[in-house]
Amino acid sequence: MTITVNLNADLGEGFGAYDIGDDDSMLGIVASANIACGFHAGDPLVMTRTVRNAVAKGVSLGAHPSYPDLQGFGRRPLRMSAAEVEAMVAYQIGALMGIAAASGGTVTHVKAHGALNNMAAVDEGLALAIGRAIKGVDPSLIYLATAGSEMARAGRTLDLPTAEEVFADRAYDDNGNLVPRGQPGAMVHDPDVAAANVLRMLEEGVILSVTGTRIPCTVHSVCVHGDEPSAVAMAGNLRRTLEAKGVRIVPLPELRDRF
Amino acid sequence: MTITVNLNADLGEGFGAYDIGDDDSMLGIVASANIACGFHAGDPLVMTRTVRNAVAKGVSLGAHPSYPDLQGFGRRPLRMSAAEVEAMVAYQIGALMGIAAASGGTVTHVKAHGALNNMAAVDEGLALAIGRAIKGVDPSLIYLATAGSEMARAGRTLDLPTAEEVFADRAYDDNGNLVPRGQPGAMVHDPDVAAANVLRMLEEGVILSVTGTRIPCTVHSVCVHGDEPSAVAMAGNLRRTLEAKGVRIVPLPELRDRF
Amino acid sequence: MTITVNLNADLGEGFGAYDIGDDDSMLGIVASANIACGFHAGDPLVMTRTVRNAVAKGVSLGAHPSYPDLQGFGRRPLRMSAAEVEAMVAYQIGALMGIAAASGGTVTHVKAHGALNNMAAVDEGLALAIGRAIKGVDPSLIYLATAGSEMARAGRTLDLPTAEEVFADRAYDDNGNLVPRGQPGAMVHDPDVAAANVLRMLEEGVILSVTGTRIPCTVHSVCVHGDEPSAVAMAGNLRRTLEAKGVRIVPLPELRDRF
Amino acid sequence: MTITVNLNADLGEGFGAYDIGDDDSMLGIVASANIACGFHAGDPLVMTRTVRNAVAKGVSLGAHPSYPDLQGFGRRPLRMSAAEVEAMVAYQIGALMGIAAASGGTVTHVKAHGALNNMAAVDEGLALAIGRAIKGVDPSLIYLATAGSEMARAGRTLDLPTAEEVFADRAYDDNGNLVPRGQPGAMVHDPDVAAANVLRMLEEGVILSVTGTRIPCTVHSVCVHGDEPSAVAMAGNLRRTLEAKGVRIVPLPELRDRF
Repeated sequence: MTITVNLNADLGEGFGAYDIGDDDSMLGIVASANIACGFHAGDPLVMTRTVRNAVAKGVSLGAHPSYPDLQGFGRRPLRMSAAEVEAMVAYQIGALMGIAAASGGTVTHVKAHGALNNMAAVDEGLALAIGRAIKGVDPSLIYLATAGSEMARAGRTLDLPTAEEVFADRAYDDNGNLVPRGQPGAMVHDPDVAAANVLRMLEEGVILSVTGTRIPCTVHSVCVHGDEPSAVAMAGNLRRTLEAKGVRIVPLPELRDRF
Repeated sequence: MTITVNLNADLGEGFGAYDIGDDDSMLGIVASANIACGFHAGDPLVMTRTVRNAVAKGVSLGAHPSYPDLQGFGRRPLRMSAAEVEAMVAYQIGALMGIAAASGGTVTHVKAHGALNNMAAVDEGLALAIGRAIKGVDPSLIYLATAGSEMARAGRTLDLPTAEEVFADRAYDDNGNLVPRGQPGAMVHDPDVAAANVLRMLEEGVILSVTGTRIPCTVHSVCVHGDEPSAVAMAGNLRRTLEAKGVRIVPLPELRDRF
Repeated sequence: MTITVNLNADLGEGFGAYDIGDDDSMLGIVASANIACGFHAGDPLVMTRTVRNAVAKGVSLGAHPSYPDLQGFGRRPLRMSAAEVEAMVAYQIGALMGIAAASGGTVTHVKAHGALNNMAAVDEGLALAIGRAIKGVDPSLIYLATAGSEMARAGRTLDLPTAEEVFADRAYDDNGNLVPRGQPGAMVHDPDVAAANVLRMLEEGVILSVTGTRIPCTVHSVCVHGDEPSAVAMAGNLRRTLEAKGVRIVPLPELRDRF
Repeated sequence: MTITVNLNADLGEGFGAYDIGDDDSMLGIVASANIACGFHAGDPLVMTRTVRNAVAKGVSLGAHPSYPDLQGFGRRPLRMSAAEVEAMVAYQIGALMGIAAASGGTVTHVKAHGALNNMAAVDEGLALAIGRAIKGVDPSLIYLATAGSEMARAGRTLDLPTAEEVFADRAYDDNGNLVPRGQPGAMVHDPDVAAANVLRMLEEGVILSVTGTRIPCTVHSVCVHGDEPSAVAMAGNLRRTLEAKGVRIVPLPELRDRF
């Protein structure tokens, strides 16, 4: 039986005259793109280019909504009511849908960005607010959520197609949470280790924590990064290794029957 | 034979803690609302409230895209490429569609705001860029255009349902253009004169210029303003006068067979 | 011996086409203005008008720096490093100084706005970051701080002239903190009670908490609000009552020998 | 007699997570920096870093005010009243002064950015508005203006110290205006030609136009660019060539007796 999985990355994170990340390389590696919607990065022209490039490469499109914080790249926690988060997420999904429609593409998933994603992972109210926005805009949109998070729970509570993602290049603690950046061992730098981690998650359905604890998990997608040359190399290596092991990398919508 | 016409106004132009205009009164007068999309005014919460209130009153929803200029309220001309205008308009239409979907409403028309509207009225390239954005997002959306403008021409060129609008409270010159604000006689302050103007346009299909020239026109909609108490009174008076003359005021989509 | 005190209020909080508050009335009541610097409200034109009006009325000028959050009016907590807060506050103070210099005025104090003020009141690191920004820009600037707060301590630690302010229209708990809005008794609505509170603070050097506890305090300034007609009336009433009791209302710089 | 001249470049044009240009290299080449003030680029942290680096290298500091257009990098013409331009420029100068003061530096000149600079070069009203802002904030600030432009005239009209700048890498037409980018011969790519151009301007006081016409000019400063590796190489080459010919490169304030 062939194992299939999705690879996703954050793309389209330039703004105006500013470029960031190596979108061209990443579009050759991932099968789904989380596209910035103008609140932490991205502007209508950047979004248009990104949609066109992704469509040309058969990469599926996702909205990547954020707190409104261009200067902080959406990484700074901002306290906001659930009602406002819901409206803000609906706005951003719709904005990308408008751009996508005008460029011949279709938005099929939503993944929260940065501080919003981190906070919603552990905050039921936020996770549900994002979910209600997704459902309100289009209940067939896939809610791409950190594996085991409040977002994953919220997606199922709201009867949304919910995909769970893991990180290939991050270590997990015994609760299934990411070891915070900056702590020793937080980052996986060896591509073979990263690939082995992902294969274990896919084949055995477990995350191996830093202490060796086996944590059951469901994995539909693996998030990779492209913000540095080494990250792009790591992501490419992961894809090649997985494919060499017979894993098939597919866009998120092809996994719909598993959500 | 009953004459039918649409009344439209710009609504949802608050932002965060800021309010502007008397939306509640205007929603009882007009049949279609042009809703700010966050670029000159409006934010996701303001847009949500405005959509809900409009839906509750049976007022049809239109996107009101603008140059990105909150500080200038979208009234300052900004030179921007046609490609960027197209992307920016698609973004804003989509954003309102996202909010509307999440609030149980449907966006049925698009009207450009402020400097973008004024510039596109006389600039074929801009008018077509707006039209392409509308068509790209959803070709059934109505392009609400100044009567006789480049936007009206662009809408027909692109095979979009195109509605032409006039102003009840403004004087026209012999070319069918508005007499610029600030010139003597530019504004019509007498509600009876305003109503008579609109009736003449509807019944005879002509605009009477300040010099008395009769200019043929097509009128589907009349734009009214609500930014000052006197404007709201004027708009309400116009509606009552038109209805007393047997004119029926309908949302834009009800006029589709005339576009 | 005449008692002197300062009255201050937040002014210049419009933005572009948006107005908020009744600045004209408030400039006739207070002796010092905290002027928005463009991050939560205010733009260069609004700041210019506010500076000119304040100068014309003999009201002293203060910068009112905020988190960058126009949509949230600076009221939403945003997590930001101390280094960034310091740079951001220096930027805003300087911006108002530029506007003031070009309009014949001089900035003499700084008071943080909204969430930044609330958070710095209880966070030593933030309070010091604001203080370092003030000192870096001009060590003669007065740090206007909530009475008894971390900001008051930080101001003294940094050897800045530090003025402590109380609220006439708010109740205090036994720790000297404001009873949160929304809790019963949080707001003082009776102008006579408000005036009595302020007089007690000035004459006896104590705040009377909601439970009757007497908390020693130093009071240089009383903050009043002008966001609603009732608030303006309350502020005017307070000034008249204080003056009738022989209290002299002076701009902050006139109290320098007490800092 | 030693010839002295200034070299200036636009620096600090990153924003948040975004970097642009090679500031480190350019700070080793130029003697004066035009620092973005947050309207087209730059944020308080970027400004702080840029000021500190410039101060450390003995590079003099200038404010580089722009239209408020981060997305367009200040390159898009925006129609704005003279009063608003004046306030906006005063705001940005002040903001950089605040940052500079807090970082141990002093702002000594002002140069407009992008579309504002291009428009003010040929628009007396805009040029005077910028000049009034400079004078209002601090009349000892140097107005760095395109040679022969309306800004140079405005600076002298307002009795401001006025420095005139030329471009080493651009061709001039017979009216002393830049040949627009995109036209053949607009750009000078040969560093020896660029250096020869600058030497001729300095030694003979003339610009040689593309047709060979000699146009009298006053040159205090030469603007170089650092947005691409080839531009940095060109700028470095120019400095070395000038120094080899005995030209001394000095910060703008050292030329004060020539303004």
